[in-house]
Amino acid sequence: MIPSDIDLHRPLIDRQGSRRALNTPVLVIDRVALERNIATMAGFARSAGVALRPHAKTHKSAEIARLQIAAGAVGVCCAKLGEAEALAAAGIDGILITSPVVTPQAIARLVALHARMGDLSVVADNPDNVDALAAAARGAARPLAVLVDVDPGIRRTGVASPQAAAALALRIAASDALRFGGVQFYCGAQQHIAGFAERRAAIAERTEYLSGVVGALTEAGLAPPLVTGGGTGTHRIDVELGVLTELQVGSYVFMDRQYHDCELADGADQPYETSLFIDAHVISANAPGMGTIDAGYKAMATDGGTPTIAAGAPEGAAFFFMGDEHGAVLAAGHAFRIGDRVTLTAPHCDPTVNLYDAYHVVRGETLIDIWPVTARGRSR
Amino acid sequence: MIPSDIDLHRPLIDRQGSRRALNTPVLVIDRVALERNIATMAGFARSAGVALRPHAKTHKSAEIARLQIAAGAVGVCCAKLGEAEALAAAGIDGILITSPVVTPQAIARLVALHARMGDLSVVADNPDNVDALAAAARGAARPLAVLVDVDPGIRRTGVASPQAAAALALRIAASDALRFGGVQFYCGAQQHIAGFAERRAAIAERTEYLSGVVGALTEAGLAPPLVTGGGTGTHRIDVELGVLTELQVGSYVFMDRQYHDCELADGADQPYETSLFIDAHVISANAPGMGTIDAGYKAMATDGGTPTIAAGAPEGAAFFFMGDEHGAVLAAGHAFRIGDRVTLTAPHCDPTVNLYDAYHVVRGETLIDIWPVTARGRSR
Repeated sequence: MIPSDIDLHRPLIDRQGSRRALNTPVLVIDRVALERNIATMAGFARSAGVALRPHAKTHKSAEIARLQIAAGAVGVCCAKLGEAEALAAAGIDGILITSPVVTPQAIARLVALHARMGDLSVVADNPDNVDALAAAARGAARPLAVLVDVDPGIRRTGVASPQAAAALALRIAASDALRFGGVQFYCGAQQHIAGFAERRAAIAERTEYLSGVVGALTEAGLAPPLVTGGGTGTHRIDVELGVLTELQVGSYVFMDRQYHDCELADGADQPYETSLFIDAHVISANAPGMGTIDAGYKAMATDGGTPTIAAGAPEGAAFFFMGDEHGAVLAAGHAFRIGDRVTLTAPHCDPTVNLYDAYHVVRGETLIDIWPVTARGRSR
Repeated sequence: MIPSDIDLHRPLIDRQGSRRALNTPVLVIDRVALERNIATMAGFARSAGVALRPHAKTHKSAEIARLQIAAGAVGVCCAKLGEAEALAAAGIDGILITSPVVTPQAIARLVALHARMGDLSVVADNPDNVDALAAAARGAARPLAVLVDVDPGIRRTGVASPQAAAALALRIAASDALRFGGVQFYCGAQQHIAGFAERRAAIAERTEYLSGVVGALTEAGLAPPLVTGGGTGTHRIDVELGVLTELQVGSYVFMDRQYHDCELADGADQPYETSLFIDAHVISANAPGMGTIDAGYKAMATDGGTPTIAAGAPEGAAFFFMGDEHGAVLAAGHAFRIGDRVTLTAPHCDPTVNLYDAYHVVRGETLIDIWPVTARGRSR
């Protein structure tokens, strides 16, 4: 067998200037920027008095989860059961699975994971699902914590009314095998509203609805022990509005192009900086003002548009996708040469990370570590 | 450690009806349809008297490459060196790498792979690259075959004129370490022109240009031993025009939605059928006429638009992406239930396959095999 890409690059670690010897396309983390982002968010949550459970769907990495927990996070969120299994196997605890787990095969895996972990919780939005979870968890040593997922109006997942939330919470509480864990409310549609004031107004309106849900639960005798939600786009507003008790922020660790298009703090500088990059090389340069690089649809998710060019081309250069394995960098008047290195920032970090087996962690121009993308591809 | 997704499903192989027990999202191959597609294309190439070297960037699978070679293919194409390394390690020979390999680190790997293989060739479009290949291959037991990549007008890779093609071929032939392998001419921009007549006119015009390139090479004393190119969209026209001596067709094995939008044969039925699917489950069903499934950006590439729904929802149902891990299936008046299975066809197969570690091969409702996606993620 041939060595993995990780094995291939391991001999380069700590060799000065080794970043330029990497085979590309390669996913690169600026270690200093990553640590600053993690510390900034941890400090923000601590001083605001809210719990921090960063969303690991962004990074899928046990190493980054450990850094977040070391900085004060209570654990991490996972979008899928498979992601939780992979991170738990790498020693991460305090996991909330933020999507319903519904098929019999998946529920069996969930209960098995619960038995192996100290602190696992899951959301539900359907009474049949609660009954199935209760039946499967019956033999467990401890009750499984189930949160009521509340639809913030996007109709993706979640119960559709305060009454439905209260009924589902009562159903959870009625089972000895389950424990009512609280409420999840994730306003996905509001995260990327570019202007701070517009985003604030939208989230304030949604938070008033959430207050009604919390009120209905409290009236039913089930005041939620946890109200979890929020994202990188809204976390400052969420904290100010004071209903969420826990933040699920994810993208702040990397800051992709989509979030850079948003004003994250009111009238202040962006509190977070880009720490995630894609290094590529020019492999063809036969057209004037254009270089073709070795990074296309298989190197970057395309749902978030095009990447920006962080280095390797003149200011104002633009990127165009050129199919599965190639991209074009256009800069009028610039003479690209084969072998030139071009560094991109990801358009949307989460599905881009999911394409790579490893992060190449750099300090400046030197590779200092390689971290596996622990839960890559684990969408099940 | 937890078992891989492949280990998880291995006990289901050959158990009747086991497809419904798969954890989802999962990439499914209809074995019968796949074999029919492979046989149809092999028969077409044989009767047309052209060589067939299917593009493995579509499937990245040693098992599918073996089926293609067993049916008569002379080998496979790979888009990247890392893909070639992975397939060669699994025993595949006769590999043409269809993109230039330019950095010193990649050229060192290329030469090492050449030493391990019986038949490896690569394309080039730049004299400096040819010189670097020649220098690196100097010590090799056999010369490395290098083809001249000719730009068909999309400015992705390739030399820009017949004169440049002849000059590059002479440079290759001048090195004892290299062998002039022929010409590559891939008309990527023409593959998806929906109407057959329009596609025919476009490719005829391009093929006339290619004839000029072949003429210039012949005049320079280097008649190309191989003229390789073509795709699923144009292969019937390419053969009729009679300049290509080898077809690089890829997507015909799976037939994604993009190619189903094209009329592949003149006035006849589509010669190929869909063999690749994504099975998903409804995980939330709280909005009327809508089911949320467990497949989003991390289960399907989005560069080709949205998938079609092959099963599990009424005729006319539509799919919408709902973020990284979810999609919405809309069918007015239909009552979706959690746990319902929905089967999708991929919008664009190549980058979708690249998201998965394995193919789940089915015959009807029974899982009959699991094949690794051998070169998944190997874009380097």
